[in-house]
Amino acid sequence: MVAGVEGEAFRGFVEELALALDDAAMVDEPAAMAPYLTDFWHLSTGASRLVVRPKDTAGVQAVLRAASAHQVPLVTQSGNTGLVGGNIPDSSGRQVVLNLERLNRIRELAPSGEHLVAEAGCVLQDVQEAAAAADRLFPLSLGAEGSCRIGGNIATNAGGINVLRYGMTRRLVLGLEVVLADGTLWNGLRALPKDNTGYDMKQVFIGSEGTLGVITAATLALAPRPRERHDLWLAIESPEAGVELLRLFRSRLGETISAFELIADAGVEAAEQAFGARVVEERHPWHLLVTVAWSFADGLMAHLEAVLEEAMEAGLVLDGTIAQNDAQRAVMWKLREGQSEAMTRKGSVWRSDVAVATDRVPELVRRCDEVLPAVRPGIVVFPFGHLGDGNLHVNVLAASPDRLSPEDRSRIQDALFDIVAGMGGSFSAEHGIGRWKRGALERLKDPVERRLMARLKQALDPANILNPGVIAEPEPRP
Amino acid sequence: MVAGVEGEAFRGFVEELALALDDAAMVDEPAAMAPYLTDFWHLSTGASRLVVRPKDTAGVQAVLRAASAHQVPLVTQSGNTGLVGGNIPDSSGRQVVLNLERLNRIRELAPSGEHLVAEAGCVLQDVQEAAAAADRLFPLSLGAEGSCRIGGNIATNAGGINVLRYGMTRRLVLGLEVVLADGTLWNGLRALPKDNTGYDMKQVFIGSEGTLGVITAATLALAPRPRERHDLWLAIESPEAGVELLRLFRSRLGETISAFELIADAGVEAAEQAFGARVVEERHPWHLLVTVAWSFADGLMAHLEAVLEEAMEAGLVLDGTIAQNDAQRAVMWKLREGQSEAMTRKGSVWRSDVAVATDRVPELVRRCDEVLPAVRPGIVVFPFGHLGDGNLHVNVLAASPDRLSPEDRSRIQDALFDIVAGMGGSFSAEHGIGRWKRGALERLKDPVERRLMARLKQALDPANILNPGVIAEPEPRP
Repeated sequence: MVAGVEGEAFRGFVEELALALDDAAMVDEPAAMAPYLTDFWHLSTGASRLVVRPKDTAGVQAVLRAASAHQVPLVTQSGNTGLVGGNIPDSSGRQVVLNLERLNRIRELAPSGEHLVAEAGCVLQDVQEAAAAADRLFPLSLGAEGSCRIGGNIATNAGGINVLRYGMTRRLVLGLEVVLADGTLWNGLRALPKDNTGYDMKQVFIGSEGTLGVITAATLALAPRPRERHDLWLAIESPEAGVELLRLFRSRLGETISAFELIADAGVEAAEQAFGARVVEERHPWHLLVTVAWSFADGLMAHLEAVLEEAMEAGLVLDGTIAQNDAQRAVMWKLREGQSEAMTRKGSVWRSDVAVATDRVPELVRRCDEVLPAVRPGIVVFPFGHLGDGNLHVNVLAASPDRLSPEDRSRIQDALFDIVAGMGGSFSAEHGIGRWKRGALERLKDPVERRLMARLKQALDPANILNPGVIAEPEPRP
Repeated sequence: MVAGVEGEAFRGFVEELALALDDAAMVDEPAAMAPYLTDFWHLSTGASRLVVRPKDTAGVQAVLRAASAHQVPLVTQSGNTGLVGGNIPDSSGRQVVLNLERLNRIRELAPSGEHLVAEAGCVLQDVQEAAAAADRLFPLSLGAEGSCRIGGNIATNAGGINVLRYGMTRRLVLGLEVVLADGTLWNGLRALPKDNTGYDMKQVFIGSEGTLGVITAATLALAPRPRERHDLWLAIESPEAGVELLRLFRSRLGETISAFELIADAGVEAAEQAFGARVVEERHPWHLLVTVAWSFADGLMAHLEAVLEEAMEAGLVLDGTIAQNDAQRAVMWKLREGQSEAMTRKGSVWRSDVAVATDRVPELVRRCDEVLPAVRPGIVVFPFGHLGDGNLHVNVLAASPDRLSPEDRSRIQDALFDIVAGMGGSFSAEHGIGRWKRGALERLKDPVERRLMARLKQALDPANILNPGVIAEPEPRP
């Protein structure tokens, strides 16, 4: 429990909030607070005396003003589906959770269909559906889309399965409304694909994990809706064949490729067992799942068949099939997206999210196969992920009754991150830093870059009340 | 001339540079300096005692270290094709020009063809050609591509004719190498489409016009190369028809649209006279120039013809033609890109570069037609530009012998910018702020946003030696 001067400040903070917010905004009973304090994977639970759920931007401003006045640190949260512990409080009990789920309106849909304005608490799937209703596509798509919220997607610059074609969340954001650390509102809700009137301040807040300001709404760019789509499963010999096929597909099918996924057979086999479904009969060492789509009603299948024939003639494909209907498409994606779930049924799983240049993915896989089982004997390495972006989840299984200890996990992580760092790669391609990868950031990131981050933090949150412990501390003034 | 303490500091600066750089790096004879001191349109000439042209990144670091030690302000320049006076020195004579044209190597081309690494002084066209040699497209394309350099394109977040499909320069940058104000090198030359390891610092430098750091090299993303391309000229009744056609084309042709340009007939007629060429015989009030392209060898023409038929049936098109060969395509683009040149032959021209949401372009045009001729009687308003991005060059002609005075230009600019600001638009969509739009920035930009910019400047260049007078001054420490 927190007492003394700090307890005094907290009381002042709560009194100020009680005047500014409605009753539904203040959640302080332990049972009611619990869902806001535990992470998505139930790996960690933080401590807090209060969860604040303002209903609008003015309410968020009131929270920030009070937090700033009383020096109360805040953890911003929307859907609470983050994967690096950046959206739950630490164990100190000092941090208050600022949850944005009540800011859930779609404020505007442009007559042109080119953009919409959504509040931070809108569920991603609701944004996708609003776009579809206007015959447009909001391309961000990821496993948690039924529960993650757009504010969190923007604050973490979420990736997902369509990045190859549409980019990360950053690319989809045209404008932001942000409450700054002192409660000041910045209305940057422009709807302009082109605007070079000074520094593009929204870029600073996108991907900053709630440490530089609180995003309350965003103008989001919508894309034309694809009309013909095909999903293709290919069994291949090696990651090298995968890279060669990526090059061939990019060259022949260009902008129509929206997903290009690589999966090790260990994970495919586990998923086949877990879900009682399969795509190819025989066992093969590696697999690709490719999605192509375009804006026209038909004609793409012929192009796909032509490139497939070319790939087969070149000996790059062992077996393959194109989904003929939604059911087959669903099986393919279940085998891909159910990897972690299937492996978790077999034992103890450790997850990662790393990236290298696409050319170097085979080297990454080879080095992981060499190094990781030596670091922790008995494990199975089962990489899968977005080959088209060079982004692999190099995950690891210790089959029951064997279990991975916290020390095992830590040693495996260090070994993997060292491999990735040595290849000019990223130790967190999609998930961010949060609290759990802060140590890796400090160990692996160029000191010059960390100093730049500290200066940015100093510029926007010098009192360190926004998500302290995540990414960077403010650089002390000289 | 500069004397006293400042003259002393300048001598120290020059002595330090003379030790660190080769002879070719130091240009101080007036005739040799002249091309570096005058802007692209020859509207303005600045004063400087020295132009420094280091040959590599280490040389740039030496310049920044010396400038920082002796408090000598620098103006960074690469191709000197900027359009807002941000890349030439002011009239004080205190600012030294740091030119990057000697850093002109393509350092690397990825075997995958997905990226290349270019130094800041590479001419844009050379980057395009390096991509083409790898059967890829570097999509940035603009009028000055034969002489502008990639460092300047990145520092100004250049736009151009392919933004609708490929985005501004920002979207094409995967990594940056930047020399910071004190000469420290930040090597952020990653080649990762996905990397969420902390704040994405490169975003801060892109579009910052040399005021936060000096970009010396970049990793650039390459796109698949289009194989079939068509250019289409449509005569239409009004900007409203243009917006409706944009909606129809986006819906039918989706991702294949790379340019969607709107041109008023006044400009088309002037260009037809100037260049002795025309596309449609009769006079019509407005025109569209549309480019579609895809990665396949054929089949797009049929889609284009189908949407054209639909547009004609809907009564949206008065006349139209699809270019049948490169010569016809060249004529269409000459009429579009030669607008300013053609109008300049008729008299005195004032140029702008504004943007609104695409839906509101007709309203923008109508308001300009109402307001601008009232502000300055006798002028012809001839808007043209990137309707697909909501970005119009609302340009103005006073036919000879009538001439626009500096006061006329200033009054026209204020009136236009007020219209745009009232519509939530941008008063500088592509060109940036430089020195010439600094006043507009101060007059029109939300004070909260200006304060954010000042804090960013303070964080990265507290001594204000990087392009002072452009965008923002450092926020004074409290």
